[in-house]
Amino acid sequence: MRQGLNVAEAREWIEGATPVLSAERVGASEALGRVLFEPVVSTRRIPPADCSAMDGYAVRRADLAGAGPDDPVELRVAYEVAAGGRALQALARGEVARIFTGAPLPEAADAVVKQEDTREVGGGVRFLCQPEPREHVRDAGEDIDVGDVVLDPGCVIRPSEIGVLASLGRSLVAVHRRARVAILSGGDELVEVDGDVSGGRIVSSNSYTLFAQCRAIGADPIYLGISRDRPESVEQQFRAALHADCIVSSAGVSVGDHDHVRSVLEKLGCRLEFWGVNMKPGYPLAFGRFEAGDSAGGLCGALVFGLPGNPVSASVTFEQFVRPTLLRMMGHTRCFRPTLQVRVGETLRKKAGRLHFVRITLEEQDGEWVAHATGSQSSGVMRSLTQADGLLVFPLEATELAEGARATVQILDDGFFAAERAGF
Amino acid sequence: MRQGLNVAEAREWIEGATPVLSAERVGASEALGRVLFEPVVSTRRIPPADCSAMDGYAVRRADLAGAGPDDPVELRVAYEVAAGGRALQALARGEVARIFTGAPLPEAADAVVKQEDTREVGGGVRFLCQPEPREHVRDAGEDIDVGDVVLDPGCVIRPSEIGVLASLGRSLVAVHRRARVAILSGGDELVEVDGDVSGGRIVSSNSYTLFAQCRAIGADPIYLGISRDRPESVEQQFRAALHADCIVSSAGVSVGDHDHVRSVLEKLGCRLEFWGVNMKPGYPLAFGRFEAGDSAGGLCGALVFGLPGNPVSASVTFEQFVRPTLLRMMGHTRCFRPTLQVRVGETLRKKAGRLHFVRITLEEQDGEWVAHATGSQSSGVMRSLTQADGLLVFPLEATELAEGARATVQILDDGFFAAERAGF
Repeated sequence: MRQGLNVAEAREWIEGATPVLSAERVGASEALGRVLFEPVVSTRRIPPADCSAMDGYAVRRADLAGAGPDDPVELRVAYEVAAGGRALQALARGEVARIFTGAPLPEAADAVVKQEDTREVGGGVRFLCQPEPREHVRDAGEDIDVGDVVLDPGCVIRPSEIGVLASLGRSLVAVHRRARVAILSGGDELVEVDGDVSGGRIVSSNSYTLFAQCRAIGADPIYLGISRDRPESVEQQFRAALHADCIVSSAGVSVGDHDHVRSVLEKLGCRLEFWGVNMKPGYPLAFGRFEAGDSAGGLCGALVFGLPGNPVSASVTFEQFVRPTLLRMMGHTRCFRPTLQVRVGETLRKKAGRLHFVRITLEEQDGEWVAHATGSQSSGVMRSLTQADGLLVFPLEATELAEGARATVQILDDGFFAAERAGF
Repeated sequence: MRQGLNVAEAREWIEGATPVLSAERVGASEALGRVLFEPVVSTRRIPPADCSAMDGYAVRRADLAGAGPDDPVELRVAYEVAAGGRALQALARGEVARIFTGAPLPEAADAVVKQEDTREVGGGVRFLCQPEPREHVRDAGEDIDVGDVVLDPGCVIRPSEIGVLASLGRSLVAVHRRARVAILSGGDELVEVDGDVSGGRIVSSNSYTLFAQCRAIGADPIYLGISRDRPESVEQQFRAALHADCIVSSAGVSVGDHDHVRSVLEKLGCRLEFWGVNMKPGYPLAFGRFEAGDSAGGLCGALVFGLPGNPVSASVTFEQFVRPTLLRMMGHTRCFRPTLQVRVGETLRKKAGRLHFVRITLEEQDGEWVAHATGSQSSGVMRSLTQADGLLVFPLEATELAEGARATVQILDDGFFAAERAGF
C-alpha cells in the first residue's frame, strides 16, 4: 500500500479503478439528470406527415400563376384542416383549403400561403402572390426521420431530451444505474441527529453531509449508521455495505478506529490501495477496493473510501475524490467542478509539502474575481464551509500566495453562476 | 388586457404579481436545494466542551516551564482521554494525560502539546517545549455558541448546511414550500406518450418537457392531462388546477383552442394581465392570475401562464418567465440563468420588432466564447433545443448581428460549467 500520494496522483489512481455502471430502464419522466446508456433511434417521423408551418391556405401552385398585389387571384375554400385533423379529399383544381399550423397538407396541395398574404372576400379568398414550391410546408420527417439517431449514448437527460423522447413515444429509456453508496461512520463518541449529546458526545454530522453530497449528484446513498470502536461492530457494518457500488466510511476521530477499519477491510478481502494524501484538510484518506465477485460477496467490486473524521476534511475529500468517482460510475464525462482563475485577496502562507484547499468567498472587483478566506480554516469548523463559495487551491510546494497573485478556485456552490437579474 | 409587451416589461409585470410561498417543516436530510424560511439559532455549543485540536498530551503549562529541545521535561502519563470519552479526574501537578483530537480537556489542564513535540520514554513522556496558554485547545462554543444565528433565512440548503443542522441536533427545518404547478395541455390532435399517433395525431410532448422543467428546479408539477377542443373539457381541466400555485397550460396549435382557454379562464375568475410578448419563438404567451380567495376557489391566487403550443416556444417561454417565477415563489433570490458575453460565429439577420432567442452552441476560441446557431430554428423542432448550450439574445430592434459582434447568451445547460478535468 502506498502512502502519502499527491492529490493528482490519488485522483488518477482512483480514476483507473472506477468502473462505469451498467444500464437500467426507467420511466423517461424520471430520467432527468441521468446519462443515456444506448442511442435513441427513432421509429417515427416528426412531423408524421407533410404539414403546414403557418396558419393560412393550402394551395395548388399552378392555380396561382401570375398572382400579385395588383393582380390577385381569387379561389374557393373547399374545406378546412385543423391540426390533428385530416383532409377529407384531395384538393381539386381551383380550390384551396383553410389550414392551421401543424395540420396535414391535403393531397394535391403543394404549398401554403400564409394568412397575411391573402384577403377574404365573400365565399372565396384573394391571393396576392404565387408561393414557392412547398413554401411553408414542413416535410414529413423533416425534424426526425425513421432510423435517425436522435440522442447519443452519454448524453445527460435534460427536460428537452425528455420532450423529444415523449414525441417519439418512448416512455422508457436505458440509462446508467445510479451509484449505490453505503455511508458508514464509526466512533464511540458519535450519536445520531436525535441522540443525547451530553458527556462530550457529538452528532455524527458527517453521515448527513455525505448523504446529501451523494443525493446532490443523483447517487443513491444508503446510510448504515454508526459502528462502535470494537472490531465486531465495524465488521458487521462493513458486511452490510458490501453490495454497494461504493462504500464511504468516515471515521470517528479516535486513533483506534482506523486500525479496526483497516483490519476489518483486510479480513473481508478489500485491497487497500493507498493511505494518506498530501493535502489539508484531508490527509488521512484511505482508498481500497474489493475485487469483483470475491469470496466476501463484494459482487460488483465496491470501491472503498475511508474519509477523515473531521467534518470539513470529510466533506472536502468527498468533493475531491468521491464526487467525481460517483459521477464517472453513473456515465458522466464532465465529472469535475468548474474552476475560476482569481486574485488572492490577502496574502496566504503555509508550509510546503501539502496542497491546501482554502475555504474562500469570491467578490467581483474591476471585472476580476477576488478570493477572501472565510474565518476559521480549522477542519472541525463546518460552518466555514457553509459560508464558502469554493476552495482556493494553494499548491503543494508553495509557501506563499501574495495578495493579488493569481490562483485557481474550485466552485462548490451549484448556484454560484445563477444571477439575480436576467442580464438582458 | 395589454398586448404585445417587450420581454423585460413582461418579466417585470410577472415579477410584480409573484408571491413568495409560505413555510413547511421538512426533514433536514430532505431539504437539499430548498430555501430556509427562518433563521436557525443554535441551542448548542460546538465543540460542546474545551477539547483538543490534536493528538498529543493535555498538560499544565506551569509543569513545563523552561522545557526545550536540549532541556526536555519528563512527566508521568496519568490516564488517557479518547474522543467521546471523559477525564476521570482533574490533572494533578506533574501529570499529563494522553489525549486525542476532539477529546475533552481534563480539568486543570491548560494546553495541549502535540505528539510530534514529545518523546515517549519508559513510563513517561519527554516534552521538548513549553506550549503557549491554551495552545491546541479548541474552546467550547468556538465554532458555534448558544444563541448564534447559524443560518440566515433565504439561504439555499446545500450538503454543508445539512451537516451543520445535524450537528445542532436539528432534524426538521422550516423551508419555503415547493411551488405546486398544474400542467395542462389542450388540443384534439394530442395524445399521451403511449397513445396512437396515426391520422396526424402527435404526442403532447410539451407536457413532459414542462413537467421536467419544473422538476429540475425542485418545483412540484402535477400533470392534469390533455383537454379537448370543447369549452366543457377545458373548463373541467382548469377547475382541477385551481388549487395549484401556478397553472401552466400549453395550447394545442389550432386557433380555436385559445378562445376556449380565454373564455374559460374569464368564467372562472382569472384576470388576464397580458397577451403576446415581442419575442421569437414564443409570441403567443398569455399571463393572468386568480385573486386570492376568490369565488372560483383559486385559494392561493394561482398565477396562470398560457404557453404557445409549439414545443420550442413552450420550452423557451417557460425558461424566460415561468422558471424565474417558480424559483422566486420558492424563496430563491438568484432566479435567473447565467449569461455569458460571446462573439457571434456567423452573421445573423432578422426583422426588427421582436427579440429573438437563437438556439446556439458555444465553442471556446482564443479565450473567448463563439456562438454558432444550431441547425433548424423552427419552433417545431425540439431537437435543436437538445443540441443547444443556450440561447443567444438577438435584441428587439436589431436586424443584424454581424460575425464577430458581441452578444449575450443565456446558458440553459445546468452542466455547462462542469469540467472534464479537475483543472489543478
